[in-house]
Amino acid sequence: MRIALDALGSDRAPHPEIEGALLALAGEADDLTVVLVGDREQLEIELDRLGEAAPRSRIEIMHAPDRILPGESPATAVRRRPDSSIVTGIRLQKEGEVDAFVSAGSTGAVMAASLIFLRPLPGVDRPAIGTLLPTSVGATLMLDAGANVDCKPRHLQQFARLGHIYAQDLMGIASPRIGLLNIGEEPEKGDELSVETHALLSASAGLDFVGNVEGREIIRGACDVLVCDGFVGNVLLKFYESVAEFIIDLLRKETDRTGAEIDVAGAFRVLDYAEYGGAPLLGVNGVIVICHGASPPKAIGNAVGVAARAVRSRMVHHVARELARDVPPESAP
Amino acid sequence: MRIALDALGSDRAPHPEIEGALLALAGEADDLTVVLVGDREQLEIELDRLGEAAPRSRIEIMHAPDRILPGESPATAVRRRPDSSIVTGIRLQKEGEVDAFVSAGSTGAVMAASLIFLRPLPGVDRPAIGTLLPTSVGATLMLDAGANVDCKPRHLQQFARLGHIYAQDLMGIASPRIGLLNIGEEPEKGDELSVETHALLSASAGLDFVGNVEGREIIRGACDVLVCDGFVGNVLLKFYESVAEFIIDLLRKETDRTGAEIDVAGAFRVLDYAEYGGAPLLGVNGVIVICHGASPPKAIGNAVGVAARAVRSRMVHHVARELARDVPPESAP
Repeated sequence: MRIALDALGSDRAPHPEIEGALLALAGEADDLTVVLVGDREQLEIELDRLGEAAPRSRIEIMHAPDRILPGESPATAVRRRPDSSIVTGIRLQKEGEVDAFVSAGSTGAVMAASLIFLRPLPGVDRPAIGTLLPTSVGATLMLDAGANVDCKPRHLQQFARLGHIYAQDLMGIASPRIGLLNIGEEPEKGDELSVETHALLSASAGLDFVGNVEGREIIRGACDVLVCDGFVGNVLLKFYESVAEFIIDLLRKETDRTGAEIDVAGAFRVLDYAEYGGAPLLGVNGVIVICHGASPPKAIGNAVGVAARAVRSRMVHHVARELARDVPPESAP
Repeated sequence: MRIALDALGSDRAPHPEIEGALLALAGEADDLTVVLVGDREQLEIELDRLGEAAPRSRIEIMHAPDRILPGESPATAVRRRPDSSIVTGIRLQKEGEVDAFVSAGSTGAVMAASLIFLRPLPGVDRPAIGTLLPTSVGATLMLDAGANVDCKPRHLQQFARLGHIYAQDLMGIASPRIGLLNIGEEPEKGDELSVETHALLSASAGLDFVGNVEGREIIRGACDVLVCDGFVGNVLLKFYESVAEFIIDLLRKETDRTGAEIDVAGAFRVLDYAEYGGAPLLGVNGVIVICHGASPPKAIGNAVGVAARAVRSRMVHHVARELARDVPPESAP
């Protein structure tokens, strides 16, 4: 298995990427090769410096000297920068040279290049970004986390199908509980989108739809897959990260004041996104995992591990089959 | 000043209400009288039991034996239960017998009765519920917190006007910074509602509109008033409360395990909603403050205090004047 890793992605590239690659290679089976996509000369120097710590037989370099910056318009950047690490890595997957692509670069550019080169799977109007929210009993996959706004009910139904397969293949849950993010329990509660989506999900074959999930129920692990429009999903995700930081900061102030000895990092490890290994872009014909720009090596390494499990489990094949459930027979592939 | 307090509102009514009334009477000026609205016989017994602890010259009872339950349809309940504490308390305000009404009962029923008896102010399509979110530098008023979904840009503009006055009159901020909850900083980011609302708020005279505020910026106190559709506002509010509980629970586990001495309640006092005193219903022709059903006495007492300050500051008068800014001249009152 070959996984391309954007070596010009993160804020401190290529160091977290190189260290993350080493972590992934150490943790995964011997059949994994990591293809670092970035500036060949720079990467050769960095790898030489590492000496025997870098298993060169399992690391390749694909030269792609151009970097798409976070502020650039994704569509324009993807069109104008064919030698960028993002476009190069995703084209490698399209051409069958690699099985997956992992990047801590511009989320918008990774999305745009994935849509252009890999294409959405049949039955997917809008690929979605999934993200794992830590809960008191583990983690819930929320999607969409910000790729799509002004969604229609059929988009949320597709997100449910995508999340169902991800939870089966990557989280090991045989019958994932699908919840719809809403502001009340009853089917008639919420906005127009919620009411119509509730009806559609209730009638969707093969999904264990557990109904509406309110904001306060997420953290209790009320469902394995939480479906929502990308607007509220993105607000929630960013708010969660910042609230966790805020509360931990309150605690640090208290421990500084009182001198109490608390292993803050240890107590709150469950909130550390580095443990979760990136956010999958679901619904495209390929395996794409997106990481935070500020990812440490562990997060990158875990993201490569997630990509490897997605490839091994044949997630994309399963997603394509799952989506065919909602396609009318005459138009089924 | 006379403030009606629903004595059949909270989950453990009337005890938190009676104790809350005593706290408010002790903390407010002598001109405050609290009118307890509930079962006269029960209230007389409770007050007699308190003896001199209850300043009877400043406590009245209005008999209203019927209670609207949380699960009832608000519109139906308000129509069918004229002797309920909620309908009675709000009618007292309409008739000028009291200046404000505070309830920890059914939010939907308080909303419905307020709309029917007090009516929205001219220029308000949909009254909104404001709620104070604790931040690292104080608190931000978020509205709407769940009363309105499928909002249009003009509704969010009205929320901004309502929040502007509340922040001036109740939070003491001369020029409140108004933020629009969104998933990106730039004006063109977000869903259709956000893009159109951004343009409308940018052109709204007299508002200090600071632009889009992302989920991660809320907690840093990026604005004094955060405007959003009630769907995302409600999700965010409930999520915040539950995340705070979750993280404090993680901490308790850690302190139990290690025996570290941490004043958990003290360190996280800023997150205790009882400190904030209820959520104002803004945009009706009257002063209404809604409390959590699980409110302890302190929360009820603080809510009565908030209502008293709203009356004293002539908030409703200011709101009516502020809303006239967006009314075309020919239709202005």
